[in-house]
Amino acid sequence: MSSSSSLIDKAVEHLSQFPGIGKKSALRMALFLLKRPEEETLHLSKALHELRTGIKFCKQCFNLSDGELCNVCNSPSRDEKLICIVKDFQDVIALENTAQFSGHYHVLGGLISPIDGIGPSDIKIPELINRIKKSEVKEVIIALSSTMEGDTTEFYIARKMQELGVSVSTLSKGIAVGGELEYADQMTLARSLQNRVKMDL
Amino acid sequence: MSSSSSLIDKAVEHLSQFPGIGKKSALRMALFLLKRPEEETLHLSKALHELRTGIKFCKQCFNLSDGELCNVCNSPSRDEKLICIVKDFQDVIALENTAQFSGHYHVLGGLISPIDGIGPSDIKIPELINRIKKSEVKEVIIALSSTMEGDTTEFYIARKMQELGVSVSTLSKGIAVGGELEYADQMTLARSLQNRVKMDL
Repeated sequence: MSSSSSLIDKAVEHLSQFPGIGKKSALRMALFLLKRPEEETLHLSKALHELRTGIKFCKQCFNLSDGELCNVCNSPSRDEKLICIVKDFQDVIALENTAQFSGHYHVLGGLISPIDGIGPSDIKIPELINRIKKSEVKEVIIALSSTMEGDTTEFYIARKMQELGVSVSTLSKGIAVGGELEYADQMTLARSLQNRVKMDL
Repeated sequence: MSSSSSLIDKAVEHLSQFPGIGKKSALRMALFLLKRPEEETLHLSKALHELRTGIKFCKQCFNLSDGELCNVCNSPSRDEKLICIVKDFQDVIALENTAQFSGHYHVLGGLISPIDGIGPSDIKIPELINRIKKSEVKEVIIALSSTMEGDTTEFYIARKMQELGVSVSTLSKGIAVGGELEYADQMTLARSLQNRVKMDL
């Protein structure tokens, strides 16, 4: 697909790099921009430029941040004695969207994976241990995916936290809320049976 | 939905302006950019900026163009005696993708619509008439949508072309190729019956 303008073709080529955006959608996006006021495109262009050049890692929790400390670490209303350990900044956003967590985070930036040669010191585990030693953290919630790597990392961190005398918990595993039982996989179903919750009647 | 960074929030806000892109997709796009090499984002940002500031209208056919004349008008291999009249530059792309048309285009930039106060001189019809007077155009194909406005514009242009002694044709109307007969609307079906094509056996 090629238009009459190399400027459009170039924009389409770049826009179609996004996941889930094909050439047709990218063209629709480019033509959309051409129909809107010029400044909208210039603002978008600037926002993307600033996003990529201005973003930093929070020096305390390694979440994405505009400044030295991220919004969560900066907020006086958050409980700094409670830390939730996640793999990635997407996980922070997912957890923030639940509005159920009022503590701080610690973003590992990866998971322990011996096959890929990723050990505890390749992700932010030493930084986590230092952070806990220096502060008055009382409880740690490990919120990692329930995969081989997630479980390995969870186990490793749980042991370290135990040594430091910090209370550790992990996300409950079970069937999805609103999910059909028949579509849940065997392992999940088995785990949700094991961890069944007594009903208060 | 708000992330830990106002730079991300801003990029998400701008990206979610695109048609069909919600906040969640926009966030996925922003995080995608952050995971890719920095220069990719800078190139994207630059391409969008250049797209909006550099684009021109071809002075002959009013298609979007990088220079004074668009690629089609500039191409020596296209038949300049044949002009296809379309409403918008999207239509040019759609027709170019069929690879069935080797003439030039004329982009009207709108359709005659008395209700909206759009008359023949508000779109590029005077320019079309001038263009045909000055050149040796032999045939004109009117490729407009089959709507009230499209039909009005088609009729007006057809009359003008007749006065100028130019042969005029229009796109055939009928059921879509690959479409189910039962889903075709009444008008389309009626038109495809009227304009039935004799089979050569």
